[in-house]
Amino acid sequence: MDNLKLKAFIPLLYLVWSDDLLNQKEVATLHDFIVFQNWLTAEEKKLLLAKVAVSAPPAREVVADWKRQVETILQENISVKSIFDISILLAENDKIINDLRPAFVKLENDLGISGEEAITDFKTVAKTFTSDCETNHGFEIEKLTQILDGKQAAIIKKVKSIISRPEFAYETSTDTAVYREKVYVWCKILAAENLGNMGYPKQYGGGENIADYFAVMETLSYHDLSLVIKFGVQFGLWGMSIQSLGTEKHYSKYLKDIGSLKLPGCFAMTETNHGSNVKGLETTATYNHHKQTFTIHTPHEKAQKEYIGNAAVHGQMATVFAKLIISETDYGVNAFIVPLRDANSTILEGITIGDCGLKMGLNGVDNGTIRFDNVIIPKENMLDRFASINEKGEFESPIPSDNRRFFTMLGTLVGGRIGIPRSALAAAKSGLTIAIKYSDKRRQFGPEGGSEVPILNYRIHQRRLLPLLAKTYAIHFALHYVTNRFINKSESEMPEIEGLAAGMKAYSTWSTTAILQECREACGGKGYLSENRIDALKNDTEIYTTFEGDNTVLMQLVAKSRLSEFRKSFGEMDAMRIINYVYENAKTSISEKNPIATRKTDETHLLDEDYHLNAFQYREKRILASAAKRLKKLIDSGLEPYDAFNVVQHQMIDVAQAYLERIVLEQFQEAIQATEDPKSKEILVKLCQLYALSQIEKNKGWYLEDGYMEAVKTKAIRKMVNQLCWEIRPDAVSLVKAFDIPDSCLAAPIAF
Amino acid sequence: MDNLKLKAFIPLLYLVWSDDLLNQKEVATLHDFIVFQNWLTAEEKKLLLAKVAVSAPPAREVVADWKRQVETILQENISVKSIFDISILLAENDKIINDLRPAFVKLENDLGISGEEAITDFKTVAKTFTSDCETNHGFEIEKLTQILDGKQAAIIKKVKSIISRPEFAYETSTDTAVYREKVYVWCKILAAENLGNMGYPKQYGGGENIADYFAVMETLSYHDLSLVIKFGVQFGLWGMSIQSLGTEKHYSKYLKDIGSLKLPGCFAMTETNHGSNVKGLETTATYNHHKQTFTIHTPHEKAQKEYIGNAAVHGQMATVFAKLIISETDYGVNAFIVPLRDANSTILEGITIGDCGLKMGLNGVDNGTIRFDNVIIPKENMLDRFASINEKGEFESPIPSDNRRFFTMLGTLVGGRIGIPRSALAAAKSGLTIAIKYSDKRRQFGPEGGSEVPILNYRIHQRRLLPLLAKTYAIHFALHYVTNRFINKSESEMPEIEGLAAGMKAYSTWSTTAILQECREACGGKGYLSENRIDALKNDTEIYTTFEGDNTVLMQLVAKSRLSEFRKSFGEMDAMRIINYVYENAKTSISEKNPIATRKTDETHLLDEDYHLNAFQYREKRILASAAKRLKKLIDSGLEPYDAFNVVQHQMIDVAQAYLERIVLEQFQEAIQATEDPKSKEILVKLCQLYALSQIEKNKGWYLEDGYMEAVKTKAIRKMVNQLCWEIRPDAVSLVKAFDIPDSCLAAPIAF
Repeated sequence: MDNLKLKAFIPLLYLVWSDDLLNQKEVATLHDFIVFQNWLTAEEKKLLLAKVAVSAPPAREVVADWKRQVETILQENISVKSIFDISILLAENDKIINDLRPAFVKLENDLGISGEEAITDFKTVAKTFTSDCETNHGFEIEKLTQILDGKQAAIIKKVKSIISRPEFAYETSTDTAVYREKVYVWCKILAAENLGNMGYPKQYGGGENIADYFAVMETLSYHDLSLVIKFGVQFGLWGMSIQSLGTEKHYSKYLKDIGSLKLPGCFAMTETNHGSNVKGLETTATYNHHKQTFTIHTPHEKAQKEYIGNAAVHGQMATVFAKLIISETDYGVNAFIVPLRDANSTILEGITIGDCGLKMGLNGVDNGTIRFDNVIIPKENMLDRFASINEKGEFESPIPSDNRRFFTMLGTLVGGRIGIPRSALAAAKSGLTIAIKYSDKRRQFGPEGGSEVPILNYRIHQRRLLPLLAKTYAIHFALHYVTNRFINKSESEMPEIEGLAAGMKAYSTWSTTAILQECREACGGKGYLSENRIDALKNDTEIYTTFEGDNTVLMQLVAKSRLSEFRKSFGEMDAMRIINYVYENAKTSISEKNPIATRKTDETHLLDEDYHLNAFQYREKRILASAAKRLKKLIDSGLEPYDAFNVVQHQMIDVAQAYLERIVLEQFQEAIQATEDPKSKEILVKLCQLYALSQIEKNKGWYLEDGYMEAVKTKAIRKMVNQLCWEIRPDAVSLVKAFDIPDSCLAAPIAF
Repeated sequence: MDNLKLKAFIPLLYLVWSDDLLNQKEVATLHDFIVFQNWLTAEEKKLLLAKVAVSAPPAREVVADWKRQVETILQENISVKSIFDISILLAENDKIINDLRPAFVKLENDLGISGEEAITDFKTVAKTFTSDCETNHGFEIEKLTQILDGKQAAIIKKVKSIISRPEFAYETSTDTAVYREKVYVWCKILAAENLGNMGYPKQYGGGENIADYFAVMETLSYHDLSLVIKFGVQFGLWGMSIQSLGTEKHYSKYLKDIGSLKLPGCFAMTETNHGSNVKGLETTATYNHHKQTFTIHTPHEKAQKEYIGNAAVHGQMATVFAKLIISETDYGVNAFIVPLRDANSTILEGITIGDCGLKMGLNGVDNGTIRFDNVIIPKENMLDRFASINEKGEFESPIPSDNRRFFTMLGTLVGGRIGIPRSALAAAKSGLTIAIKYSDKRRQFGPEGGSEVPILNYRIHQRRLLPLLAKTYAIHFALHYVTNRFINKSESEMPEIEGLAAGMKAYSTWSTTAILQECREACGGKGYLSENRIDALKNDTEIYTTFEGDNTVLMQLVAKSRLSEFRKSFGEMDAMRIINYVYENAKTSISEKNPIATRKTDETHLLDEDYHLNAFQYREKRILASAAKRLKKLIDSGLEPYDAFNVVQHQMIDVAQAYLERIVLEQFQEAIQATEDPKSKEILVKLCQLYALSQIEKNKGWYLEDGYMEAVKTKAIRKMVNQLCWEIRPDAVSLVKAFDIPDSCLAAPIAF
């Protein structure tokens, strides 16, 4: 094609035969365009049409030559902005072509190849900011680790050194029996290191340090999670049930052997027919005053104890929850120590043990079922801190209500609802460490002609992982807060702390489930290989949202307790007065609800911590008030309260969620206040902003419905979330390194 | 307490000692109240105060007696509305007490026990609508099954009968080797039944019925998913690669043996360093014209083939994708048949096979890695439908562009992106069947004094499962539509169909991941036991979001293809004209955007299918236009298009999502139009309404931001979603029964 006029068609011809830019219809459009150009001779038309004929493609070399010609033009003319700019230069400013500009531009539009983007097909090696972004070190990792570990740094260090030993190499056998024994051996090593009895009183050989006990649970969770749960069953559930529900005679008899793992045991509460509604347990403990014994009995198959950890293989005793019957009167659920096996592991008479078999995860824990066929135990085996039977054989308790007594007993076991969310958080940290380190190195795609780019440079990948990283930091501080509240609790604070623990258990474990899901997907095929451990992390923690209280049920409880707090403040106020009260209680919020504030989008405002906290508080109060109003309306209209609560269940979840989000943000902000190292503080502030704004973004439907924000603001928040992700990305690897998870625990090849 | 005045305190005293209603502070409030009542004598005060003293709880029998007294009052006086009403009746309308009404009411408010709800603690057996709701049969299950199965009913029936045979009992061994062999044996049985070659031409022993082939894949997915994937690798990926990329000489040589599973093989595309960006594959196939051979070579470790199904144990050959090199010129990625093992399963020289080892799921499939060390294959082993080497040793192809040729080759393999989402959908159906049948029988909690209630009667449980059930039905019809489009495709429709398949692959597999997560949680501890199969369903399908194209990458592709369609329509229109165009194209939408329509909340309107479809279409167009505008603005401002696309990645996902949601709704509505049986139609309409409204609810943030709906409307939609869940609940069990999954496949004990 030496004809200058015809040269104008070169870029178009190239596009016909190069990458999949034009479809058949579009090629036909180009065909017609050529046919209708009167200034072309019949021969020229024929020549051009031959070059777009699907039946006779040009040689590969011809297409390559077209490309070279165009590339030369582009290299020599940086001002080129469109395909037509190339055409006119190839045609050496031929007048005919120049006059045809509108026709060519229309053609390019018709073919969808208008604008600058179309010419990138010809450009080689573009400089892009997406490629330039890379990991740097904006703060000292060790200092941030210190802030995270706090006062428990010493015990955390000790546990890490133990689980990094060669004997803690992960078990790779798929044989459940082998795995269970390995986990049991690990537990014995930990017991020998005095980690199991960390929470028990010193006089029974314990460490009397609950804060350290929780730190142990959390740190162990960087290792195998079956180990953590087996450990928690033995030293937490079994041991703590003795400590919390028993009295001196039980402590002196059992605690030392439990702490040393000489006496492995179980916590037998859940029954097949009663999981969430434990008040309805059906196992009976019938008192025989004459013989001074109890008879423990399973009335029917579905009343068997189920999912009981340590039951299938190792447990020698169990704390069994059963309805106490004295002279045919039911005194509600109480707790009893029941032997299951002798020291040779032989199952005792009257006890039937089943094996729960293979589970989705935690297969190193021997969960089983237990049935009792009129098993006789001595009177002293009743855990009698909250209720007892006197010399005359009469029931005695400082708490007359059976339900209330039972829930008081359960309240003493709330520690489990602190250990589990902290374990869940550790698993999330492992997953994020693996996924973020991998994403920083894994390259895929890149600018035309340039190198491939780390996938963490892609906005969508940042969006998937970095808000979750921020949330993980946020929950870390919130769980420390709950732990501290629990350790320093007074009796009167218990209802609040129980609510906090139940709520944070749900919040943290749901968060972990979502995080590990995202991590798996973010690691693609590599995330599916067991060697990279997201498999185990995900499947082991999957049940965290169910055990220690089903999350949905816990959220209902949290909401109900918020609601009863609320109603105690308001009593019989009418709807209008309630609303007014809420407004008064959120004065800063009101001032923000004027048209200027609801539309305020300057960066200083959007990143302002007070704005964040106000928005969270406002939402919490409004949702609570609205749920209360709705319930009242439903009940006033004649609904049974049971039905009314059913109708608003969905809103109740929101009540609890909004409460927990506020707590988490508040605690994150307070932790930052207390941070001294300026570089650590700086990055924590960014993470906190990202947590706050991504939660607001998630809830934008609510904020818009309420009128607290207008569209212009929620849109600005979306952009700000993107921007924060982009700004945090260079520090992302350092932020996961600050979790300081031992390499041997992390183990995943893709993380190194 | 015979003193009538004192009797007024009985309900309050009961509440102090009964369930956990009052905390210490509130008991103190009651204490103070008593102290300040001047009308009580010192002795009376002392008596009452003794009864609220924490240190000296009353006997259990005393509390029980108080309760009986209150209950008697309640039984005899149905008009009682508050605690004070009880007090006054117990006090037999004592004047002093009557005059104290305001003080008592204030006290009750202070204690948070005002209103009707407080008195339910005394009520026994309330009649509630929550308890009354139960499973009924509003339609004929078989008729709905017919509608779902459609023209493939016969083959579906055949497959079900095969996988229900005793030899298809699930493998329970945790030994991977055992499991892999079992799956292989199953595949051989299916091959013997002529199911594997269903899609191949008749002249090579096939069934020449692609529609049936997809139905086979889908139906097999009710059974073990390793089986489905192994089946798909052999007959789909391996066999179809020969059929789609090879020519007659390959068909006659291989297809029959592939279809009978005499020749197990692999599809070796993915490399460690190139998963999503397959254009960058590094394996080479160097042509030697002298010897008429190719040399297949892996240049470095990270260029090995990875995750290749059938590679670790059974595969004898593989279709290998490699860059063709002729005389040191790179002709892009082409496909070659490379032998891996001889008939005795001995690995051939130059081939190194690795085992991917344990995976999160699909452990019945032998995924492996393959490395080639200068492996020589004959020239005829090049799959030469789209490119070949002529007698002179020159490269020839009807598609001059290497990339375009490669993507054309990939396009012929799009069938995999139809098989996978259909398999995913079947897994979701299994999960929902198990979870819904269990929730219909599992009882937990209940009204005070009444029986426990099936958990599917709880609104929150309905909310968790029923919108997902509706979505599953919706996707079912959409996937049938995509299948039909694929089977009846013309060349020019291919880009659209490729986009549809890629998008629906992402939409369906993400949906399945979310559904199985919800099912696991909804089944609590039972959902965690492997015997109930949610474990396997969840872990096996987990990789569906990654393989056959990473979902996030696919969504970007779908969005880009939507965008290029869009730009072809608009060309260089300015922003305002684009917006106007969108409005014109959504005329009904405009009419809805007037203040009346944006607030319209009557039931007829909210349930109107045209309203639903308009809302979906409006959203699709607006999001597309907005992404286009934003991209244009970014590029005009000087960004490289690569960077600009990175900035809008998050919006791109929305573009694809909105497109797919519209397709799914449209197809569901069309399927309903074609439904004749009135009862089936009626329930499908409800499901379709639930799908539509729950999607709108999910996207309410966007609709509010856009102004298409106002808060009053989105709130009404939330209520309508709840109502539809409630209305569908009685039919839920029948709706999952209509999936007609064989009992032996479902297998989960909790589903029976």
